[in-house]
Amino acid sequence: MASFRYKTFGYAAPSAGARLQPFSFERRALRPNDVAMEILYAGVCHSDLHWARNDWGWSNYPVVPGHEIVGRVIAVGPEVTRFKAGDHVAVGCMADSCQHCDQCRKGEEQLCREGNTMTYGGLDRITQEMTHGGYSKHVVVRQEFVLRVPDGLDLSRAAPLLCAGITTYSPLRTWGIGPGSRVGVIGLGGLGHMAVKLAAGLGAQVTVMSRTPDKKADALALGADRLLVSTDLDAMAQAANGFDLIIDTVPNKHDLNPYLPLLDVDGTLVIVGQVGPLDEMSSVPLLLGRRRVAGSPIGGIAQTQELLDFCARKNILPETETIRMDEINEAFERMERSDVRYRFVIDMASLTEPAEATL
Amino acid sequence: MASFRYKTFGYAAPSAGARLQPFSFERRALRPNDVAMEILYAGVCHSDLHWARNDWGWSNYPVVPGHEIVGRVIAVGPEVTRFKAGDHVAVGCMADSCQHCDQCRKGEEQLCREGNTMTYGGLDRITQEMTHGGYSKHVVVRQEFVLRVPDGLDLSRAAPLLCAGITTYSPLRTWGIGPGSRVGVIGLGGLGHMAVKLAAGLGAQVTVMSRTPDKKADALALGADRLLVSTDLDAMAQAANGFDLIIDTVPNKHDLNPYLPLLDVDGTLVIVGQVGPLDEMSSVPLLLGRRRVAGSPIGGIAQTQELLDFCARKNILPETETIRMDEINEAFERMERSDVRYRFVIDMASLTEPAEATL
Repeated sequence: MASFRYKTFGYAAPSAGARLQPFSFERRALRPNDVAMEILYAGVCHSDLHWARNDWGWSNYPVVPGHEIVGRVIAVGPEVTRFKAGDHVAVGCMADSCQHCDQCRKGEEQLCREGNTMTYGGLDRITQEMTHGGYSKHVVVRQEFVLRVPDGLDLSRAAPLLCAGITTYSPLRTWGIGPGSRVGVIGLGGLGHMAVKLAAGLGAQVTVMSRTPDKKADALALGADRLLVSTDLDAMAQAANGFDLIIDTVPNKHDLNPYLPLLDVDGTLVIVGQVGPLDEMSSVPLLLGRRRVAGSPIGGIAQTQELLDFCARKNILPETETIRMDEINEAFERMERSDVRYRFVIDMASLTEPAEATL
Repeated sequence: MASFRYKTFGYAAPSAGARLQPFSFERRALRPNDVAMEILYAGVCHSDLHWARNDWGWSNYPVVPGHEIVGRVIAVGPEVTRFKAGDHVAVGCMADSCQHCDQCRKGEEQLCREGNTMTYGGLDRITQEMTHGGYSKHVVVRQEFVLRVPDGLDLSRAAPLLCAGITTYSPLRTWGIGPGSRVGVIGLGGLGHMAVKLAAGLGAQVTVMSRTPDKKADALALGADRLLVSTDLDAMAQAANGFDLIIDTVPNKHDLNPYLPLLDVDGTLVIVGQVGPLDEMSSVPLLLGRRRVAGSPIGGIAQTQELLDFCARKNILPETETIRMDEINEAFERMERSDVRYRFVIDMASLTEPAEATL
């Protein structure tokens, strides 16, 4: 068993700027605590696009994106106790961590002192091979980083919970959001629509903040209580001091100053979508209201499992559009234009073994 | 009693950019819950300079600065229960607030929903007269905004606790600093030196962060455990993730990016000195460590009293240089060059009634 490597196949970006194309590769041999799974669905995250294009400058090629993975166990190593063949399981943004630092021991593997191993574009902690993500047929992950998909959670829509879901759920939990909390959500894309559903699911009053009023019906349909139009200065002034937490899901550099006075005393604007320099902001609303600006990554494994269980119990699911694997390049283009409500999910049944050598 | 107004005198800036000069004026008649005090000492805060010059664009003239006031009660209104003539008392940055909003009821008058009334440059909530500060012989303040100076606290040095002290004590308390906490202090001026003394007094490990090593002896003498030289990239890298709270007392726009990775997971960099646009900062250290940037104003009245009592108990005092009232313009110039260790205090015995009409 230990020497067997899984031949698999998927789609990869061969270099920065190239279109994704079929790619055959191998997964590592099963270690004693590894789980091998057949991937059934993979969510398409904006990070996948950034990574494929090397927008952040740290990509290595080929890149097989995908860190919102739902599948079925096909084999387990001899020490695996939590899963068995046939189980419905999931993998998110991390595939490993040191497991012994204070953060890992607290269940905050995303904050591992040695750095967690990303599901794609990371380096395997033992072999130093580059990891490959979920735009593929199979994946091998140690059991500590495998989530259980609860019965009743629609497999075809659950995948975006593994990144968009946990990225917005984690700050809601960090900042203690519950019944009566006042939550704002900036940006209504993959992350934003989950922030709305999850905050509402936790009992908060939810306000979507948008530059234009045209998202009102969508916001309300997702569970928001209202839409606040950020270009309506009267409405913005009236909303001052009205939020405990604002989750900013916008992936691009933008002006934070209009939003800071909306926070109540000790309130926090938490950035989850934008990677890089923030636009210049004034200290005045921070000083006058003891307000805060924070960042938040994904959550830990235990919290991700909590999220999946919460969503099954509350029947909360991402809004998805299912695509075929060979539609991924078009999906990237549409995602760039925000032409998706709200997350693409690749049905991996559409991925067939390449007839000839690839990449 | 109620119709008697106090003739008094002090120093005022007659207009933006003008030197401070003698100024005769009146204090309001005693209201039933008012305390009249003779001012013994007034601290010189950087804000006084900004305000005198209209650096923030909201000054009205003449400006009588001074919001670090220590004095002796000379008269009280008939409903005053907390103070009597002869008591040693103090007044800080606020002289009034609405007293009925949620923040006032919590003892956070500095965050009053209707805005607190500043000790100078504010508007009296009843007469709408402009308030004048502590660079003067007398002041009248309602008892709710008068602090008791505990026995044993050196009157001639206590004044800077009323702004520099509470501005740094309040975030230490907000963020729960105590024994074992790791606190960094950026900037070693009026606020910074108090942050060091107070954090050390609360039992924290204190690190002063400075661009050059020449402040090391001073930092250690004030109670810091070490000096971290922010231009020493090796030392900065070694210090990563090492702080629960960094108090940034620098009054000018500066780069925050070197300091953000020094925060541990969930750590906060709190700005207390800079008013205006913050330099562009990267979201990456915020995202990766769930780190936060916050602002913090002064504290409430109850917390200010707690600070005075704490300092008396722990024998913590600002480092001061006593000046005469007529040395104030030179003191402003020296303060601008950071040529003061660490706070000027005006001995108000040096202020005599002008022989002729002024301003």
